[in-house]
Amino acid sequence: MPHIQLPEGLHGIRAAMAFRPETAGPLNQLAEILLHAPNSLTPGERELIATYVSTLNDCYFCQTVHGAIAAAHLNDDEDLVRRVKTDFQHSGISSKLKALLVIAGKVQKSGKHVTARDVEEAREAGSTDVEIHDTVLIAAAFCMYNRYVDGLATWQPHDEELYRQRGKKTAREGYVVMSREYLPQR
Amino acid sequence: MPHIQLPEGLHGIRAAMAFRPETAGPLNQLAEILLHAPNSLTPGERELIATYVSTLNDCYFCQTVHGAIAAAHLNDDEDLVRRVKTDFQHSGISSKLKALLVIAGKVQKSGKHVTARDVEEAREAGSTDVEIHDTVLIAAAFCMYNRYVDGLATWQPHDEELYRQRGKKTAREGYVVMSREYLPQR
Repeated sequence: MPHIQLPEGLHGIRAAMAFRPETAGPLNQLAEILLHAPNSLTPGERELIATYVSTLNDCYFCQTVHGAIAAAHLNDDEDLVRRVKTDFQHSGISSKLKALLVIAGKVQKSGKHVTARDVEEAREAGSTDVEIHDTVLIAAAFCMYNRYVDGLATWQPHDEELYRQRGKKTAREGYVVMSREYLPQR
Repeated sequence: MPHIQLPEGLHGIRAAMAFRPETAGPLNQLAEILLHAPNSLTPGERELIATYVSTLNDCYFCQTVHGAIAAAHLNDDEDLVRRVKTDFQHSGISSKLKALLVIAGKVQKSGKHVTARDVEEAREAGSTDVEIHDTVLIAAAFCMYNRYVDGLATWQPHDEELYRQRGKKTAREGYVVMSREYLPQR
């Protein structure tokens, strides 16, 4: 049961956002820019970073919904998403994304864990400064979203098909458009 | 030295925000709503929550600048800010703020650490659901801001007077107005 009186029938972060639409605005805009807007990292790559960090933070809702969005962007390759969550170094992703996931994993512990060598390796694998910046901020942002979702004890149903359908829709429409489903319209 | 080529002469999060103005927008709007906009928790109380979480995350820039903003809101009581950072249970803050800081400290570790009992105690001390929500989100958001600032190894000068002056100005003007100093104007 959620720790506070959240609107019923909404799952995970949606309930928290519907409860406080003022903060939902910037939270959705941030996700839109980091994960959905045009970027030299593909939406699938960025959603894998979000999924990986949410897995490290043990947030069921976020790792499942972002895993589903990642799969929707990656030709429904749910097996790849599973492999990235459990052992990305031996998954089929690029060496560049592997180097960025190393940085994301360090940020999940603390920003201070990221070393100049980690960044150098990401650059040697072809990452730009903006890609390194965005990786750090995606990882940091999911340390926020995950704590928000679990810190309020939001309702997180275990129903893979529900997340799969939500994932397909969010992959298509993005975060700001999707938020119209549960935010009051002005 | 910062891990990526950040604009020179800017400190902490300002350099990262000037590097990527697209994400700076929602990041500043979120801080504005959580910390500066009208709320039943005073700006001083909310800045103390931000300062406490930034101290737990060992982020020098954030704990110092938000500590300075808190002091500016609290009649320049820098001693109170110091006591909240080191031992808030024996500081002069209200029992309500103490109960909210307990929740914030749990969120800093993981959202899952927050218990129904923690929330009940906050409520018994007079907290509303919105105040509990905002405490969880402030704590979660500083787990992001702190990792962003340290994960890029931003420049964080150790000069208390600089943070004191910055703190007074931010306390007065808020985050969105202050961001005009370092964000490109459209």
